[in-house]
Amino acid sequence: MDEVPGSVGTSAGFALRLGQTVFSSASLLFMSLGVQFYSYTAFCYLVTIMGLNIPWSFTLALVDGYSVLVKCPLRQPGILLIIVIGDWVLSTLTLAAASSTASVVDLLVQADGPYCPPKFCSRYQISAAMAFLSWFLSLASSLFNLWLLPAL
Amino acid sequence: MDEVPGSVGTSAGFALRLGQTVFSSASLLFMSLGVQFYSYTAFCYLVTIMGLNIPWSFTLALVDGYSVLVKCPLRQPGILLIIVIGDWVLSTLTLAAASSTASVVDLLVQADGPYCPPKFCSRYQISAAMAFLSWFLSLASSLFNLWLLPAL
Repeated sequence: MDEVPGSVGTSAGFALRLGQTVFSSASLLFMSLGVQFYSYTAFCYLVTIMGLNIPWSFTLALVDGYSVLVKCPLRQPGILLIIVIGDWVLSTLTLAAASSTASVVDLLVQADGPYCPPKFCSRYQISAAMAFLSWFLSLASSLFNLWLLPAL
Repeated sequence: MDEVPGSVGTSAGFALRLGQTVFSSASLLFMSLGVQFYSYTAFCYLVTIMGLNIPWSFTLALVDGYSVLVKCPLRQPGILLIIVIGDWVLSTLTLAAASSTASVVDLLVQADGPYCPPKFCSRYQISAAMAFLSWFLSLASSLFNLWLLPAL
């Protein structure tokens, strides 16, 4: 059977998972190191979703790394299906969180009042950008695994 | 070949498309009948996406209705692939627009200032809810067609 680069158990898949973990963690840190994130619903939602995203990506990064080291890729259709569905649900939630955060930040920047001191606002923007990057990588993982699924 | 209920050329598919058209139009109308929607980026984005969504859903509703009437379902893999990809891209954009709008409306309601007179705010909320419903139906269409695709 052909290898699909980027799917579970390949080194490209490992890189994708590592990227997801890094971007999710960066998004969470930039958001929660500033104070007052809990006063906006969208920011709380982002923190919640990133808190789900990080352990999921990190676990799958460990699985991929192990598969690459022992040269024994994971090939059970059941497990692959769970991974595809989990990735897909998490990427949908991440997209919703990222766009909510981006629109709220945009509104706060436009309002230009006491709500958004420049130091915090740029942090919020970076956090939203990191969340979008994490969404993109998560979507790529999901598509690569979906591509592999009918071949099993 | 089996019919997949909800895919292109079935009466369930026609109902899904009709629902998408109705919800997208309702979302657009509730948003643009209130004034000042163009002063928020998220609301402009929602209006743009709904303006893309309505002709797409309406055209496919016509195609489905025609297929049901002449009892000749559409079975070209190429066209089906275009429909699946188009549905998927539009549903992603709709989800982003709906969650942006919902978070901005939530912020405006919490701020409780002159930005959000009760009459307009409830309209914005209804518009966001309609956009979420439209996203859900669009996603269902996309999944049913994706399910049909490998059988062709």
